[in-house]
Amino acid sequence: MAERPLNFYAGPAILPLEVLRQAREELLDFNNNGLSILEISHRSKDYAAVNAAAEADLKEVFSVPDNYRVLFLQGGASLQFGMVPMNFLQGGKADYVNTGAWAKKAIKEAKVFGQVHIAASAEDKNFSYVPDPAGLDLTPDARYVHITSNETISGTQWNRYPDTGDVPLVADMSSDILCRKIPVEKFALIYAGAQKNLGPAGVTVVIIRDDMLELCAEGLTTMLSYRTHAEKDSLYNTPPVFSVYLVGLVLKWIKNQGGLAEIESRNREKAARLYETLDGSDFFRPTAAKKDRSLMNVTFRLPSEELEAKFIAESSGAGMVGLKGHRSVGGIRASIYNAFPPEGVDKLIEFMKNFEKANS
Amino acid sequence: MAERPLNFYAGPAILPLEVLRQAREELLDFNNNGLSILEISHRSKDYAAVNAAAEADLKEVFSVPDNYRVLFLQGGASLQFGMVPMNFLQGGKADYVNTGAWAKKAIKEAKVFGQVHIAASAEDKNFSYVPDPAGLDLTPDARYVHITSNETISGTQWNRYPDTGDVPLVADMSSDILCRKIPVEKFALIYAGAQKNLGPAGVTVVIIRDDMLELCAEGLTTMLSYRTHAEKDSLYNTPPVFSVYLVGLVLKWIKNQGGLAEIESRNREKAARLYETLDGSDFFRPTAAKKDRSLMNVTFRLPSEELEAKFIAESSGAGMVGLKGHRSVGGIRASIYNAFPPEGVDKLIEFMKNFEKANS
Repeated sequence: MAERPLNFYAGPAILPLEVLRQAREELLDFNNNGLSILEISHRSKDYAAVNAAAEADLKEVFSVPDNYRVLFLQGGASLQFGMVPMNFLQGGKADYVNTGAWAKKAIKEAKVFGQVHIAASAEDKNFSYVPDPAGLDLTPDARYVHITSNETISGTQWNRYPDTGDVPLVADMSSDILCRKIPVEKFALIYAGAQKNLGPAGVTVVIIRDDMLELCAEGLTTMLSYRTHAEKDSLYNTPPVFSVYLVGLVLKWIKNQGGLAEIESRNREKAARLYETLDGSDFFRPTAAKKDRSLMNVTFRLPSEELEAKFIAESSGAGMVGLKGHRSVGGIRASIYNAFPPEGVDKLIEFMKNFEKANS
Repeated sequence: MAERPLNFYAGPAILPLEVLRQAREELLDFNNNGLSILEISHRSKDYAAVNAAAEADLKEVFSVPDNYRVLFLQGGASLQFGMVPMNFLQGGKADYVNTGAWAKKAIKEAKVFGQVHIAASAEDKNFSYVPDPAGLDLTPDARYVHITSNETISGTQWNRYPDTGDVPLVADMSSDILCRKIPVEKFALIYAGAQKNLGPAGVTVVIIRDDMLELCAEGLTTMLSYRTHAEKDSLYNTPPVFSVYLVGLVLKWIKNQGGLAEIESRNREKAARLYETLDGSDFFRPTAAKKDRSLMNVTFRLPSEELEAKFIAESSGAGMVGLKGHRSVGGIRASIYNAFPPEGVDKLIEFMKNFEKANS
């Protein structure tokens, strides 16, 4: 078997080795029933238990209040970009904060269904920061306010969330859900493609406050109303069984690690060590504003694109994959999600220091 | 490890054991890269190859003409029920053939987007037959004609397809795609949730003729236009990586078995033996009209509901799972998809004969 490289992919991203091992162990025989989880009915007791446990564990781990539902849907954040305004905009106005490439995608889809007001934008500085949450230009009668809690491409993250009063706050948390404790009760709806901190690609988690279910538009095709999935506990149609099962295993793993407090503390240490290295060097240049740096995606530049190409090639030779920045911005990006081991960060830092010595 | 039972689930359904074994074998180390297929970027070369091979193999195995595209989407047939009319109905008229529970679901969603004309219905006889394909009441200016090629609940299947002239023919083939050779060129669009003959839950295959891509409605949210996914080779957003990978393995398995001709001949033999047993008994009563019996879902009744409950309980004790008919109709349903082994059918027949002797 090939040695396991350090996996810095931005998503789909590294999964805990223990989770992969358990999935492998029981891939031909789930719950001692002699069948694979891949080939059992979603109406079976075995899958009903998987679905229920994943929902309960997510609520427990993420401290989701009782008046929220957890749904397991398909289509990723990309479908949520349309589903949110389809359900809640209904020709009205919504406030969006433009923090980067992913926020822009959400904004584009919202415009299909109503008026979009940009409450703040970081485009003036190439999305290197997050606008002040206290300084947003909010519309009093907006149907909702939408933010992107972490921008994987520019490497920024909200560290405080805006206070939107009675206006529902909606967040795309695809790339930082479960990286730290957050006040879920500030949000009316949170959505996240699973393929960073939650599990594999193919399932989207939606955490929705009960009162939002009453506001879903009428006349939508059944699959695109949140109400459909809430009423049927995510079993209106055949769910992505294996992906939900793996999300369940990841949640158990988080619990075994000591829960979100321990995960958060580990994430803060990992990121701090890496940013310290960047700050202590004239060779590496971090691209995100200090106050808004992401715990998950650490982005930086080298003195030249040639050196960046060399860095990527040599890091790959040293057993590190996925360090190339997004094709739209270039540079280097180290994605260090929950499952990324602290020792991996140390190895990267060592490699960076050696690379700097050899090339400056 | 528990003994592998005979898996008669209607879907998610039995997968070839060889496919499950290969998935297990390489679950921690895909392509000798040291990582799981579950945690690699969908933009990596490894996944690009998986995506391209699955598309090419499906075209080869199913004899899909060159002027068609194969797409891997999410949301199952249930989302396609809405996506088809959302893209092509646009307030116009479409003809639907009402063959059962699944056709009805498609009809319900089409009504959200335009006028639905029922070109024929089998509701008069409890969906026990398929209307004569030559006798449909077709609308000359319909945007398309929609059929459900196999009804899993009532156990009927189209054996000849209607001739719709210039009007595009659209089919939900979720439960019988790849069970036999069909003239794909008769269809403008075929869709299928993977979880019966193609792979696990979580991916939907769409086979769409090039000219249909020109007809997709404007102004849809990006994810819901077929054009988006065709233009990006199913990589517009993060695809359900593992499900597509497994579909690829199932397609290789079909090729290794001798292709669709061999699969079809095996399916016809399996179904023939089972229907022969039903026809030769006064105890078991097949529910579908002889001419329209499904190769995939064999539905039958026993003299009483008490005997049916006993049959299900005893078959379960004898190592057979999933024989209970759909909750909406009751009775017995033996789903014998491609991966279901011929010996399994023999075992069921033996069990049935013994059960009849003991209970008649």
